[in-house]
Amino acid sequence: MNILVVGTVAFDAIETPFGKTDKIIGGAATYISLAASYFVKPINIISVIGDDFPSEDLLRFKNMGLNLDGLQIKKNEKSFFWSGKYRNDMNTRDTLKTELNVLADFNPIVPEKLKDCDYLMLGNLTPSVQQKVISQLIKRPKLIVMDTMNFWMDTAKEELLKVIAQVDVLTINDEEARQLSGDFSLVSAAKKILGMGPRFLVIKKGEHGALLFHKNDIFYAPALPLEEVFDPTGAGDTFAGGFIGYLAKKNDITFENMKRALIYGSALASFCVEKFGPEKLFDLSDKLITARVSEFINLSQFEMDYFG
Amino acid sequence: MNILVVGTVAFDAIETPFGKTDKIIGGAATYISLAASYFVKPINIISVIGDDFPSEDLLRFKNMGLNLDGLQIKKNEKSFFWSGKYRNDMNTRDTLKTELNVLADFNPIVPEKLKDCDYLMLGNLTPSVQQKVISQLIKRPKLIVMDTMNFWMDTAKEELLKVIAQVDVLTINDEEARQLSGDFSLVSAAKKILGMGPRFLVIKKGEHGALLFHKNDIFYAPALPLEEVFDPTGAGDTFAGGFIGYLAKKNDITFENMKRALIYGSALASFCVEKFGPEKLFDLSDKLITARVSEFINLSQFEMDYFG
Repeated sequence: MNILVVGTVAFDAIETPFGKTDKIIGGAATYISLAASYFVKPINIISVIGDDFPSEDLLRFKNMGLNLDGLQIKKNEKSFFWSGKYRNDMNTRDTLKTELNVLADFNPIVPEKLKDCDYLMLGNLTPSVQQKVISQLIKRPKLIVMDTMNFWMDTAKEELLKVIAQVDVLTINDEEARQLSGDFSLVSAAKKILGMGPRFLVIKKGEHGALLFHKNDIFYAPALPLEEVFDPTGAGDTFAGGFIGYLAKKNDITFENMKRALIYGSALASFCVEKFGPEKLFDLSDKLITARVSEFINLSQFEMDYFG
Repeated sequence: MNILVVGTVAFDAIETPFGKTDKIIGGAATYISLAASYFVKPINIISVIGDDFPSEDLLRFKNMGLNLDGLQIKKNEKSFFWSGKYRNDMNTRDTLKTELNVLADFNPIVPEKLKDCDYLMLGNLTPSVQQKVISQLIKRPKLIVMDTMNFWMDTAKEELLKVIAQVDVLTINDEEARQLSGDFSLVSAAKKILGMGPRFLVIKKGEHGALLFHKNDIFYAPALPLEEVFDPTGAGDTFAGGFIGYLAKKNDITFENMKRALIYGSALASFCVEKFGPEKLFDLSDKLITARVSEFINLSQFEMDYFG
């Protein structure tokens, strides 16, 4: 099964209580694609960068099995840039700078060969760009997973709701679920959001794990308690990449398999935060991932004996 | 196995976004004992009340299998009273009033017949009172579980640490674990706290579940996502009561059994929040509890197939 990923490929500058980076590579599509590359190949990226993006990093992407045929490189333009600073709790961050650059008038073009994608991952981006990608496909993908954020709820609600109505799985965080639904209770929020179109909803709660909602079923995947979170940037995208990667590998989109996919996504995310930027995602192996998944099993699984 | 519970039996007045109560019965020992009563009987309470405490409520306690021989009733004195108001998120609350009354000079006396207790639950109280109870026992209980709160860390740290050094399981919330250890990471905090004496540490995270730490093992019990949390008062105590109740019933204090005890504690807590005060805890049954535990199994258990 192939995966098409649309999202940003960009520069980030990050400051955490542990240190500070210069411009390093980042972007939703970067994290999603690297994480997914441990499950299926190729991962086809639809994105845009300027000619300031280092060619050696593009080579590293290719070596990871990412197909860059849908990555537009704009001459004499600059790549999207975000800089932010994490507070001491590592859960909240302040945006210091956002330079849209090439993203300002991004018109995604899906190459002919990539138009019959099996699994589509819509990374967090302008809903209209997400829509344009869906519209270019020659068949309905087996599964569409969509990530978004509060910014689009504030500025492009109508377009956002149109895209949400077309996807199978929506992934947002708890605050975004509350904002989108207007309900404080996540159970009530989930019911409303499932009524907007998606058959599945993943609510990401950062260090508190993630919830999967489908009809009346709920599954909870814990986050691994970590001694040190070095840099949370990209953890949500990495989670989504591991999630859709595992689903595509198994080509199984049942609720039971989504539970496992949530655990794999959480495992990949737990690696991501160990280093600045996406660096850790270049250095994993099936063996490391399996070992990490075992830690999740130890963390959350138990043998029940019955009461009475 | 018998359980000895020390803690408050008191009045609360509670205000939540859903409503407001007059003085209703409450107190740590009340919630703990009612929850534990579904597992073993009798539950022996060490506490103190004034003669303003309704005799019909004492009768209801007795009907639930609570032994009140260690409950002092002070003539012409008033019971401990707390009132508080929950904010809209239901996770934070402001104390409106605290009247110590009988608690001000509480000198716990363990009746002779109760001095050979098997399982001891030290509910949140002045550390010196917790200490006095331990000191009166004729043998070391098989298991001592202790709950405490930030207030004692601020006002009686030295005495608190002495009691902590004598217990097997400490239950505190995440902010208290951070305060007690001085570490933000819960993993690092847990290591330090386990170094203070307890072999097991339970960190309660409210709607985000609870973590059990023992040596290098971690187990995570989720909280049940609820559509409505009516009144969170006593949820932590109810959790502790279900936890020690299940352990005593099975008379098994291995890490494996503690995992199950955490799930039972969480199940009892999920009932507690459905009504104001401890009311719901009078109306449960083995059948209801087993059904609720099944919901936790559905919520968190999965079949893993391996990667690669």
